[in-house]
Amino acid sequence: MIRAKAIQVALGQRPADIAILNGRIANVHTAEFYPADVAIADGIIAMIGDISHCLGKGTKVIDAAGYTLLPGFIDSHIHVESSLLSFSEFARVVLAHGTTTVASDLMEVAIVTGIEGIREMLKEAEGSPLKLFLFSPSHLLKPGLETIGGGFDLSDVKETLPWLETVGLAEIIVHHILATDDVLSEAIALTERARKTLEGHAPALTGKTLAAYLTAGIRSDHESTNTAEALEKVRSGMRLMIREGSVSTDLRECLKVITEHRVDPRHCLFVSDDVHVLDLTTVGHMDHKVRMAIEQGLAPMAAIQMATLNAAESLKVDDWVGSISPGRYADILLVKDMEKMPIDTVIAKGEVVVDKGQLRLPYKAVRYSPILRNTVKLRRPLEPDDFAVRVDRGAKQARVRVIRVLEGTLLKEAAEARLNVKEGVIQPDTNKDVLLISVVERYKRSGRVFTAFVSGFGLKAGAIASTVAHDHHNLTIVGTNPLDMAVAGNRLAETEGGLVAVRDGQVVSEVPLPVAGLMSDANAWTVAEQTRRIHEATKQLGCPLLSPYMSLSFAVLPFIPAYGITDLGLIDALKYEIVEPVLEVST
Amino acid sequence: MIRAKAIQVALGQRPADIAILNGRIANVHTAEFYPADVAIADGIIAMIGDISHCLGKGTKVIDAAGYTLLPGFIDSHIHVESSLLSFSEFARVVLAHGTTTVASDLMEVAIVTGIEGIREMLKEAEGSPLKLFLFSPSHLLKPGLETIGGGFDLSDVKETLPWLETVGLAEIIVHHILATDDVLSEAIALTERARKTLEGHAPALTGKTLAAYLTAGIRSDHESTNTAEALEKVRSGMRLMIREGSVSTDLRECLKVITEHRVDPRHCLFVSDDVHVLDLTTVGHMDHKVRMAIEQGLAPMAAIQMATLNAAESLKVDDWVGSISPGRYADILLVKDMEKMPIDTVIAKGEVVVDKGQLRLPYKAVRYSPILRNTVKLRRPLEPDDFAVRVDRGAKQARVRVIRVLEGTLLKEAAEARLNVKEGVIQPDTNKDVLLISVVERYKRSGRVFTAFVSGFGLKAGAIASTVAHDHHNLTIVGTNPLDMAVAGNRLAETEGGLVAVRDGQVVSEVPLPVAGLMSDANAWTVAEQTRRIHEATKQLGCPLLSPYMSLSFAVLPFIPAYGITDLGLIDALKYEIVEPVLEVST
Repeated sequence: MIRAKAIQVALGQRPADIAILNGRIANVHTAEFYPADVAIADGIIAMIGDISHCLGKGTKVIDAAGYTLLPGFIDSHIHVESSLLSFSEFARVVLAHGTTTVASDLMEVAIVTGIEGIREMLKEAEGSPLKLFLFSPSHLLKPGLETIGGGFDLSDVKETLPWLETVGLAEIIVHHILATDDVLSEAIALTERARKTLEGHAPALTGKTLAAYLTAGIRSDHESTNTAEALEKVRSGMRLMIREGSVSTDLRECLKVITEHRVDPRHCLFVSDDVHVLDLTTVGHMDHKVRMAIEQGLAPMAAIQMATLNAAESLKVDDWVGSISPGRYADILLVKDMEKMPIDTVIAKGEVVVDKGQLRLPYKAVRYSPILRNTVKLRRPLEPDDFAVRVDRGAKQARVRVIRVLEGTLLKEAAEARLNVKEGVIQPDTNKDVLLISVVERYKRSGRVFTAFVSGFGLKAGAIASTVAHDHHNLTIVGTNPLDMAVAGNRLAETEGGLVAVRDGQVVSEVPLPVAGLMSDANAWTVAEQTRRIHEATKQLGCPLLSPYMSLSFAVLPFIPAYGITDLGLIDALKYEIVEPVLEVST
Repeated sequence: MIRAKAIQVALGQRPADIAILNGRIANVHTAEFYPADVAIADGIIAMIGDISHCLGKGTKVIDAAGYTLLPGFIDSHIHVESSLLSFSEFARVVLAHGTTTVASDLMEVAIVTGIEGIREMLKEAEGSPLKLFLFSPSHLLKPGLETIGGGFDLSDVKETLPWLETVGLAEIIVHHILATDDVLSEAIALTERARKTLEGHAPALTGKTLAAYLTAGIRSDHESTNTAEALEKVRSGMRLMIREGSVSTDLRECLKVITEHRVDPRHCLFVSDDVHVLDLTTVGHMDHKVRMAIEQGLAPMAAIQMATLNAAESLKVDDWVGSISPGRYADILLVKDMEKMPIDTVIAKGEVVVDKGQLRLPYKAVRYSPILRNTVKLRRPLEPDDFAVRVDRGAKQARVRVIRVLEGTLLKEAAEARLNVKEGVIQPDTNKDVLLISVVERYKRSGRVFTAFVSGFGLKAGAIASTVAHDHHNLTIVGTNPLDMAVAGNRLAETEGGLVAVRDGQVVSEVPLPVAGLMSDANAWTVAEQTRRIHEATKQLGCPLLSPYMSLSFAVLPFIPAYGITDLGLIDALKYEIVEPVLEVST
């Protein structure tokens, strides 16, 4: 875009809005650090180097003596809804940690509300100093083995793909490629023609199946969980999105492709995928990943490139963001300590949003459209009997499939257990840590409740529930007994969704998420405190997981091996087909 | 694109078309060399690594033992017309040197014929194993100080920009940006919306004017002629296209940003801009630049990345070309000697076009459309008197502006000279090497002949002429006397354009270029021999320049300092305004 004011400022014909003097810049194009001043006009970088001719009355001068200027950080794969925060509050938290750009498919909202909810989210994001790039979700192109409230079909892809903020087609599913699916094929062709990115989603995919998948032109992957997988993917030409989320903590292993295997880091970058508010407000966001990488032995410049330019190039938006250079958005961080990397000052779109550690954006209550409200709609209140897995009345024992949830990864193990049967109902067993897990359809459509078995949550009493449950976001409950499960489910219908922990028929802790049943409308730090409390309450029930509700939300996801669960049944993730939870009954 | 056959080959369900076994690949993503086999299906790379399951009856096996496999080279800024070859012949020559992709704006053809000529060129390129990416020309958006035959306006940009092969808007002129021109502004906005590249053109631009120019989002520049300029541009976030052409030989100086200043080479790449057939057939193309860079001390991997991946990323087509990885076009070079880099085997789009040094593509005569023929149309035959620069009949001397043409660069110096006047006509002076240079409008429009003064050609007798003359491609003649100039000009009208050298009223050598007056329709090696001969003949006339006709073609270009010449006058390139060639007359 030809920008008259920026041109005039660069030429010294009018004063800059902001001048950052006496700092040194991290030039991610050349991998150099050197002293340079920066002039900003209309939110854009107008001039770098000697900018004395750009100063004038009205120029706000920032003295950066002793500071290094970094480009604002970019998270190129994050589900902002997983923070549990509204976009406005998410923005406040991540801006405070130096993130100035995120890319997200807003699929969770689309699942609940369809494209109208995405429009509402974009409206909310419009005025924010945090730039939001959109991916068109691709998961919903084919009807899944689940009931959802919204959706996102080919016509929605056609509508959203040409938008200026849209950067590609998100998380393309392996089995749809291998099946040469027609609808996906058309969406892919449209994306290529729009010169946007085909984002991958290839958990545990290697060898010939990975190659077959890549022949479609897939650009990136964020699902590597070990060094060998990461190495194969980056060698195969994928942009290696090294994930460090609240549950899936893959950075240490994946970073070894650089620190041990010494690959060129240009196609490596950091992403969050899913990270909740408590982690965001305590350990941080992209700053945390940069710090971790430097601790693991990466050179600071490489770590900075990975969090900025490499991400911008992966999204093909490096003409706009990812570096401190003329014509880019004025997204600049001031940092003194390059090892521990506290972010002292944050400028986003030319606005000083963090000033010497102080966040300058106030909390503002947002009035949400009816599209995003009242989305937890049960056909009738739940009763304990809804969660009974019934077999022959004469049965004594049942051998069942069990989803084993693991700490530190989204991958789940396929396990089995023998459980007792009482009066034809299979009983959970807290000693074996085999609990009930139920998915309750919440959009007043199928009205179904499906129950299977789970281990890893470790509850000794009570139940926990959530309306955040990938990728259908039905009401999902893990419990030691049907009564507490019913109480938990009914409570979430009252709060329009959220997270809840129940014991002995009483709610012991909760996080209301009334926006689409996915997000809070409260102040981020309030939600962080609510989350801290419910994690503590859940620990009291016996759960050893660090992020039990996020683990719960992924326990049901059918696109990550071994199993997922929906209102329609237990899903074998590799074959994407329904399997029976009960394998055998013995009398 | 979902490609059923490539998927099946990768999965081992059907045999590969080609298998390259026992080689080691240059992985430009990770900057590694390691042994790996490659399976090709339908012109696409299907699988890399262990491909034993992809072999079968009908698989053509290439034994690459002892060879390194490089991605095909990419020239991301070349005016293919400057080769003097038809696209088909240009393709044969550069493929033989390992180039499998070029990007070109085909502006020279557009100048002569408009968009219809571009369509004809693209038709010719369609079946070629050489991939042609198109830039929409931007020079012609504003009427220039010149008369041309064709043109390329905003409606042409709108038409061509969405094409799948179009990669951006070419060579955006500095003064149009600084003038915040409306038409250019719209073309730029369209390009950004199409997510394509804004290619720069910033000869000798530095400091605040460079910054002002870059605020428009300009992505690249190919005009750096010295280390300081190159360093400033790459630090400013531009993709540094290091040029090594037939006239502008900038590689040695510009490469020092890497070999001496040690910048990250990821945003550096090699381009030709303008290189003629004789250089292409003798020193080579991108292989020559890679060799030169390695000779200058660059690591082979960095040189290969610059000629492949870095170029593909600069054009934003790295999902398709620039590396050996699944889903990319099967563009692969087999090289044994990584220093001298003779290209032994070339596979382009999965076709073996060079096999152990033997070019497998035959010459094919192309019948060109009338759109591209008979484009040299003079109103009447030229006469010596057409080239007279007249002043007062009483004048004895005149002080004149002189364009001084230099070896090794497209930049020209602004000089002055005192010349004698005879009977009111300013006389060229071979002793001072100040000759006449005339531009004769050749599209039967203005019919004008404009004459000014030039030095650097060193002719002691005769005249040389060309219908290749940037950016108007009018008939351009440099001469020691008006008679030979008239003979030269009239001869080119007879041959439908070309290059010609004349002495004592006789044609001594010529290269007919009947396709748009820019390109030959003959076999490339025939044209190379014709070019060698005319260079020799021109040297006999006294010319010391290595590529006199290319120097001539740029001597008139108004977008490169100091001066240009068109049928309308002498142009000050920095101000882009007409200036008088005659400064003063003395009696």
